[in-house]
Amino acid sequence: MSNEQESFSKKYSPSLAGSPGAVVLKSPRTVANLVCGFDILGLALAEPYDIMEFRLTDEAGVTIINRDEYNLPTDPEKNVAGVVLLAALEKAGSTKGIEVIIEKRIKPGSGLGSSAASAAGAAVGANKVLGNIFSTDELIQLAMIGEKLATGVKHADNITPCILGGVTLIRSIHPLDIIPLASPDLFVTVVHPQIEVRTSDARQILRKQVFLKDAIKQWGNIAGLVAGFMKNDTELIGRSLEDVIIEPIRSILIPGFDEVKLKCKEAGALGGGISGSGPSIFMLSTDRATAQSVGNIMKEIYDKIGVENNVYVTTISKEGVGSYNN
Amino acid sequence: MSNEQESFSKKYSPSLAGSPGAVVLKSPRTVANLVCGFDILGLALAEPYDIMEFRLTDEAGVTIINRDEYNLPTDPEKNVAGVVLLAALEKAGSTKGIEVIIEKRIKPGSGLGSSAASAAGAAVGANKVLGNIFSTDELIQLAMIGEKLATGVKHADNITPCILGGVTLIRSIHPLDIIPLASPDLFVTVVHPQIEVRTSDARQILRKQVFLKDAIKQWGNIAGLVAGFMKNDTELIGRSLEDVIIEPIRSILIPGFDEVKLKCKEAGALGGGISGSGPSIFMLSTDRATAQSVGNIMKEIYDKIGVENNVYVTTISKEGVGSYNN
Repeated sequence: MSNEQESFSKKYSPSLAGSPGAVVLKSPRTVANLVCGFDILGLALAEPYDIMEFRLTDEAGVTIINRDEYNLPTDPEKNVAGVVLLAALEKAGSTKGIEVIIEKRIKPGSGLGSSAASAAGAAVGANKVLGNIFSTDELIQLAMIGEKLATGVKHADNITPCILGGVTLIRSIHPLDIIPLASPDLFVTVVHPQIEVRTSDARQILRKQVFLKDAIKQWGNIAGLVAGFMKNDTELIGRSLEDVIIEPIRSILIPGFDEVKLKCKEAGALGGGISGSGPSIFMLSTDRATAQSVGNIMKEIYDKIGVENNVYVTTISKEGVGSYNN
Repeated sequence: MSNEQESFSKKYSPSLAGSPGAVVLKSPRTVANLVCGFDILGLALAEPYDIMEFRLTDEAGVTIINRDEYNLPTDPEKNVAGVVLLAALEKAGSTKGIEVIIEKRIKPGSGLGSSAASAAGAAVGANKVLGNIFSTDELIQLAMIGEKLATGVKHADNITPCILGGVTLIRSIHPLDIIPLASPDLFVTVVHPQIEVRTSDARQILRKQVFLKDAIKQWGNIAGLVAGFMKNDTELIGRSLEDVIIEPIRSILIPGFDEVKLKCKEAGALGGGISGSGPSIFMLSTDRATAQSVGNIMKEIYDKIGVENNVYVTTISKEGVGSYNN
């Protein structure tokens, strides 16, 4: 459907294929917030994903090799995956080291949880090469160290679905309280318009206070969305995908947003909105044909306004970070 | 356990027992808000309930007979059940009338949905004597007319569980969007301290704006509570029964509140809080023995501070308004 999507689908030949104990993982992109669930809900996409290879080394420390074109730092202290691997080694009390090879398959800054994919992939990869010693909560805590480096905030709404798959609720960060909700058989269409929205800007423009009456509407929708996922009631999911607090402000940063949302829903999408802090926009549909036409509409709108864009038609990942098989 | 509770349990002899087509209903008390779900969540109690008898009359209009001591108006235009019955007759296009006999079995102003019990009971009763002509949404719309008379606001968080039973979500009032969530097998302990908290006062002291960070905590808890009810995860229900927005303000109007909450949780209650706008306080427990000791604690605290009180140990009603069988 797009160049990026085609390049994304290209075959990956693991560099560490022959290395004993090496693991090759795919770490999926994720959609945080899910419109009304700001900071508490997220889901994992089957595609796109990053690929990460790990092996234990006799020399201590972390070695990072980037196999992509994004020039991310290779100093482990400055790399999202790096800080997670260092923390994992320390927590394990290991005198060994870890080598990681990273191929990010779509551009960072998409609003699709690029840093979470690195952080969660690193936590799971470290756990595998160290002999599965960490609990799920520990994996999430480790991965949050990476999110902190990337965004300045320890948030978990991308990391959690990335690690667990499906739709997840982060009821609380302190103490960590993670609830897997469901893995509905829905199709997800994502458009990534190639504009820059900084997470910090997207957070700064939010108002610190909200009207109680708006908050009540919002929590009705959140409750409806959670109930919809758990009852597998797609119409309820659709009705609940409304955000009266964050979207009206953040969507200003995303040209074409209102038109995309309106036309995609007219074409049969259940609903959708900004992915994370944007600029990507996601839409949920009950069948692949609708998801495809929704993708065509997104492409048309961004082509028309002259913004380079990539469109993905995918499903909700049921497993999250998992083995990569060519 | 208390005088009111004993008097509540007394046998009721229907006045219209011999009258053809007459129906005798029990209309349960309800707990709105459920701590974190202000204006959107509610549950129905198995007890206490009001008893209402209905029959169709050949003469038009509504006749109200109160069998209790609370001196509620008998002018149908000024009576919560009355306005609902008038609206039901009009909606049905009926030239007949309805006679209703009402025995409220606990005092109005408890925070346990007294007006909703009258309004919902009237809607269901009218529907029965008119031949089951209304849909559930229509019953709720009719009953909201009674709530409007009582409180000035068309709210549905007591009416909906009263009519449907179980735990219900009101995702939206305009348009009406009602979602039955679950009917968990939990025990509910309620204390009704005999002090007056006016719903209008309890609403007026709320702040019109809330901090976004508090709203985020609140919607995490709401999502957790909904997921807890649907997964039947009692620990999650307990963890989610926290309110950082409404309770800290409203609990000031209820002496003893903090002590009741703390000691009941120490005694094993999952959690709980203000019922509706108070003054009643409810606590959920997984077994009857805990629910009983929670009740003893409530009684002790209010006896100690010299506030007359009534305690109920009950369950969640699975059916809502239903036939009264002696």
